[in-house]
Amino acid sequence: MRLAVLGAGAVGRSVVELAGEYGHEVVAVADSRSAAVAGGSGGAGSDDALDASAVLERKDSEGVVGDADPEDALAADYDALVEATPTTLDDAEPGFGHCEAALEADRDVVLANKGPVAERYADLRALEAASEGTVRFEATVAGAIPAISTIEDYGPETVEAARGVLNGTANFVLTRMAAEGLGYEHVLAEAQDLGVAEADPSFDVDGTDAALKCVILANVLTGGEPEFSLSDAEVEGIRNVPGSALELAKEEGRTVRLIGEATRDTVRVGPRLVPENGVLAVTGTRNIVQIDTEHAGRLNISGRGAGGPETATAVLADVGRLE
Amino acid sequence: MRLAVLGAGAVGRSVVELAGEYGHEVVAVADSRSAAVAGGSGGAGSDDALDASAVLERKDSEGVVGDADPEDALAADYDALVEATPTTLDDAEPGFGHCEAALEADRDVVLANKGPVAERYADLRALEAASEGTVRFEATVAGAIPAISTIEDYGPETVEAARGVLNGTANFVLTRMAAEGLGYEHVLAEAQDLGVAEADPSFDVDGTDAALKCVILANVLTGGEPEFSLSDAEVEGIRNVPGSALELAKEEGRTVRLIGEATRDTVRVGPRLVPENGVLAVTGTRNIVQIDTEHAGRLNISGRGAGGPETATAVLADVGRLE
Repeated sequence: MRLAVLGAGAVGRSVVELAGEYGHEVVAVADSRSAAVAGGSGGAGSDDALDASAVLERKDSEGVVGDADPEDALAADYDALVEATPTTLDDAEPGFGHCEAALEADRDVVLANKGPVAERYADLRALEAASEGTVRFEATVAGAIPAISTIEDYGPETVEAARGVLNGTANFVLTRMAAEGLGYEHVLAEAQDLGVAEADPSFDVDGTDAALKCVILANVLTGGEPEFSLSDAEVEGIRNVPGSALELAKEEGRTVRLIGEATRDTVRVGPRLVPENGVLAVTGTRNIVQIDTEHAGRLNISGRGAGGPETATAVLADVGRLE
Repeated sequence: MRLAVLGAGAVGRSVVELAGEYGHEVVAVADSRSAAVAGGSGGAGSDDALDASAVLERKDSEGVVGDADPEDALAADYDALVEATPTTLDDAEPGFGHCEAALEADRDVVLANKGPVAERYADLRALEAASEGTVRFEATVAGAIPAISTIEDYGPETVEAARGVLNGTANFVLTRMAAEGLGYEHVLAEAQDLGVAEADPSFDVDGTDAALKCVILANVLTGGEPEFSLSDAEVEGIRNVPGSALELAKEEGRTVRLIGEATRDTVRVGPRLVPENGVLAVTGTRNIVQIDTEHAGRLNISGRGAGGPETATAVLADVGRLE
């Protein structure tokens, strides 16, 4: 399939790098300020596909992907749009608008951007229903872990709940606090030095990122009826988890993890006591998704929940499912 | 979709019971001696679908599913054949013949029967290539755990290895031996009383069942080139694991599990030392599939590996993927 990739951050870049390996062609790439389009203005490559390496090298050296305007990517001749621009809340723009443009042109959309799926699920599904195109969004929840497709394969009506550790930054911080007996601020600084936490870590440590993912899971369970958005979630982050809580927990063979849970009725994110050696106590930046099903009991899927290549595999798995 | 279900054991029965919930119709059911066909001879129900409860009640009370001959099920008007007859080795008959009949009639085939997929993978794929029908077999490996579809979605070429605990009977025995300090024979008898092990448990405790599943995984990784069959697997079971080995392991924070591993080059099954609290040390009859991927690191999926409803969900997930 021919892909137009919007977003040249870690995920967009990895999709551009790996698409060929999966048998797909990247015909357009855009970041916030520029675009490269195959066969057209600003493209580097043949008429059929972009020269992926050239595009990424230019991004590295000059900060732009090409000479074209970002809008030119949406106008390119692609089969599926990969929406990997930064997650935004509320109206989820400009990401939602990108999806809208693609669906109105009867193209498929594969999202890594959580905004449209968490904040405007019903709108997105309505656009999809009116379009020949299909919307998929495995990459929006838990990176390489096949959470959405597994719920889809089981049949969402047969899934009672989905929960887990969905934010690697917060999990890294809690893991280190428990392992080293260090305080929150100290470990957060360490995480920032390692690049595991951002300069402004609030999205991760306040539980917002995990909550968006749980909102998406809830929408999958309900099919959007009722529709969930971030404002429906009860969210508590990890800023107020004291080191003493972790020590006390350890004495009882337990620890603390930021657990998010979605059912057809509620979305909750907060620090929870879990058995120290239990399935939910994944360590470091790893994620786990636990699915409770009606006919097959509990399923646990753990793996890397974030990262360029990791999330790109989820995007490309979705592209594969479109065909 | 309209389903013809061959096999009225635990899996076949559960498929018949659950198909309606997933939006499918069962138009034929056969066991080794009889069949029920909708709208035709021996059927109980409307022209369109069988009365699932009536068919299963008759099986319970009379030991047959209907008045028709088993061959009548293969001649019914179905979209997908569910092959859930007992696994047989070598020529994998009669299961392979059932798949052949369906594919030659351009129908889809969904297998829970490991025989054709493990012992005659290349033959099966050749029939599929010459047919309009598609072959799927999620239910042949690890019950409700989506092992095959996950490898498929990642792209088999990007998966370096798949390993895990794939036989619940053997795992139950080892778990109980370690937990209670009891010997193999004692725990095996307990497992038989509980219905976790069969009167002749060799298929499970000798590692054959796990090996068949690993052979299937290897064939998925290679696409059948090279083709693996049971004779290619190095297999050691759990009969010779002494209780003392488990005690010694425990002193080092480890335990013993029957681990099967498949790569593009080898299939091996045998008892292995694993960390006591590690991911592979699932307990009781639970299974785990661990997938090592090129771009997304390691994925762990644990859940129920066997059981009527559990395996039926895998069958019905495959049916869903056919559409």
